[in-house]
Amino acid sequence: MNATPSRVAVLAHDLFPHRAKTATGVVRYADYEISAVIDRANPGSRVSDHISIPDDRDAPVVASMADALDRDPAIDALVVGIAPIGGGFDESWRPDVTRALEAGTDVIAGLHYFLADDEEFASLADEHDATLHDVRKPHPDLTVSEGRANEVDAHVVLTVGTDCSVGKMTVSLELTRAAQERGIDAAFVPTGQTGIMIAGWGNPIDRVVSDFTAGAVEEMVLDEGDRDVLFVEGQGSIVHPAYSAVTCGILHGAMPDAMVLCHEAGREAVHGYESTAIPDTGTYVDLYEDLAAPVHPSEVVAGAVNTAAVETDAAARETLDAFGTAIGGPATDPIRFDADELLDAVLDTGVDG
Amino acid sequence: MNATPSRVAVLAHDLFPHRAKTATGVVRYADYEISAVIDRANPGSRVSDHISIPDDRDAPVVASMADALDRDPAIDALVVGIAPIGGGFDESWRPDVTRALEAGTDVIAGLHYFLADDEEFASLADEHDATLHDVRKPHPDLTVSEGRANEVDAHVVLTVGTDCSVGKMTVSLELTRAAQERGIDAAFVPTGQTGIMIAGWGNPIDRVVSDFTAGAVEEMVLDEGDRDVLFVEGQGSIVHPAYSAVTCGILHGAMPDAMVLCHEAGREAVHGYESTAIPDTGTYVDLYEDLAAPVHPSEVVAGAVNTAAVETDAAARETLDAFGTAIGGPATDPIRFDADELLDAVLDTGVDG
Repeated sequence: MNATPSRVAVLAHDLFPHRAKTATGVVRYADYEISAVIDRANPGSRVSDHISIPDDRDAPVVASMADALDRDPAIDALVVGIAPIGGGFDESWRPDVTRALEAGTDVIAGLHYFLADDEEFASLADEHDATLHDVRKPHPDLTVSEGRANEVDAHVVLTVGTDCSVGKMTVSLELTRAAQERGIDAAFVPTGQTGIMIAGWGNPIDRVVSDFTAGAVEEMVLDEGDRDVLFVEGQGSIVHPAYSAVTCGILHGAMPDAMVLCHEAGREAVHGYESTAIPDTGTYVDLYEDLAAPVHPSEVVAGAVNTAAVETDAAARETLDAFGTAIGGPATDPIRFDADELLDAVLDTGVDG
Repeated sequence: MNATPSRVAVLAHDLFPHRAKTATGVVRYADYEISAVIDRANPGSRVSDHISIPDDRDAPVVASMADALDRDPAIDALVVGIAPIGGGFDESWRPDVTRALEAGTDVIAGLHYFLADDEEFASLADEHDATLHDVRKPHPDLTVSEGRANEVDAHVVLTVGTDCSVGKMTVSLELTRAAQERGIDAAFVPTGQTGIMIAGWGNPIDRVVSDFTAGAVEEMVLDEGDRDVLFVEGQGSIVHPAYSAVTCGILHGAMPDAMVLCHEAGREAVHGYESTAIPDTGTYVDLYEDLAAPVHPSEVVAGAVNTAAVETDAAARETLDAFGTAIGGPATDPIRFDADELLDAVLDTGVDG
């Protein structure tokens, strides 16, 4: 999108927090400030009443865009932080988007339904000098990969997964933050709509022409190649019946120097494809490494497991130990514990690419 | 495209035969008749002067669309059988396309430049009741794979490759023809623009949204699933720096019961990516089989090698023996010799899916 607002409201009607993955991601990780979350189901509460969040990221929950506009300091964008299945636009959100545009406030969305193609929104944006950012719309100059991502100075780290929604974006963001805290010039390379909203830039890899999948990732790695470390957000899984093409294109387009395998504790089948069992952890390690090797050799150097469903820390540690043994490296849950161990493993493989 | 003409002229100015892959593919394999090849560089010659072709597929080479229209019986479509790098439209072809439309003749093209978006062509087609078929334009109802291709009755055979342009389409077509000659209800499942022009239907997998790569293949396998055998045209290679996403999506979308590994004798690096060496043949076998296994187990049961660059039949046999040993199955060159051995190997794995 190449838009970096400084202060935003986040639309998340009825679904915040647990069914509003984009809203919670933005609230946790975005570089810009959160003025308010808009959720008509919970006005008067605070974000910290719903999710654990550092104090400096906390914000009030308000009922409407009008309420968000009443707050000081003023916001410069509305982020649509929810998406129904299919990525459509829910007409019940129209008054909030309309109100934002009438106030000259930009609107950022990652829906399959492009706001800029909506006549009312386009006309209001024009009239009030506001910009509509549809982050899921690929830019028109994408092309095929030249196989050059390995030429960058940066050390490139890719999160890969055992399935969709196992924490690849979160792990990439936690690693980026932990590296930055150590004074390393690290950047997060977003590949999906939530990551793009958080970072304010990026290519929506799942929406590009299939021939350009690797090329769209390569372009981003080359653009940010002067950093010390890049954490590329992975997508899907290499054995996902529907999305493996995207996973494979990211692997070969990014040419990572190291990979972190992400998993959710307790997941036994591919989500939504219950007849496809999740293979052994070692199978994933072999598949990702063997597939990477002919294009750019890479190793799975650490594991990250979402242990939210595991009750005690002790049991979570057991789960992580088993996962680490299976991949032959350290494994942790960077949300439940921290990302230091992962970062050490990733940096051990060198920061010079 | 879902258009099956009965008799066509094939546009191939200046590039016929060796740099006109679509034209030669159509001349060799299309279900419809070829009235003429249009090549201003070689008028007065015949197709058989340029490539080896069965007598019943031979046709004259003429200088222009006007000459093609003079022939009897009348044609019902012009096929654009050439594409410059980048898939643009060469303005020097405009008079031929215009002439075809003025005669009410349909035009079929597989360019990235869509003829239907060209104002002059669109208006002429409208005026003269002709249809413009842009076969590289995906239909709008594509979606994600449901992981159901393994439910079809047909035995599904996928050609996979060591690189682009190693003969996957040709091998699939030769196997389809050989199976049909044995009375088997076999169909070719096209995934690229040339294959689509030959078959008269199909999804251009390299142009679909990356999330729909597997789904676009699944759709075709389900549509033709009542046949005895389907030969799915593969694309790219699983270690191609740019196109592996497409390869991976086809593998998981088609869920093949058997694979045929295609190679070109003498190729040592990925074409256009000379720093990426072609791995050992066994590496490909392992990669394709290991990647298929978690979604739908499949084996590489035979190999096909384009030995056009190998001078003698004896030397070609040696090359084929070595390739067969590496994959643990028979290997042949179905153009230089025939496809019977490949077909036997493929059918040995069962025609009941």
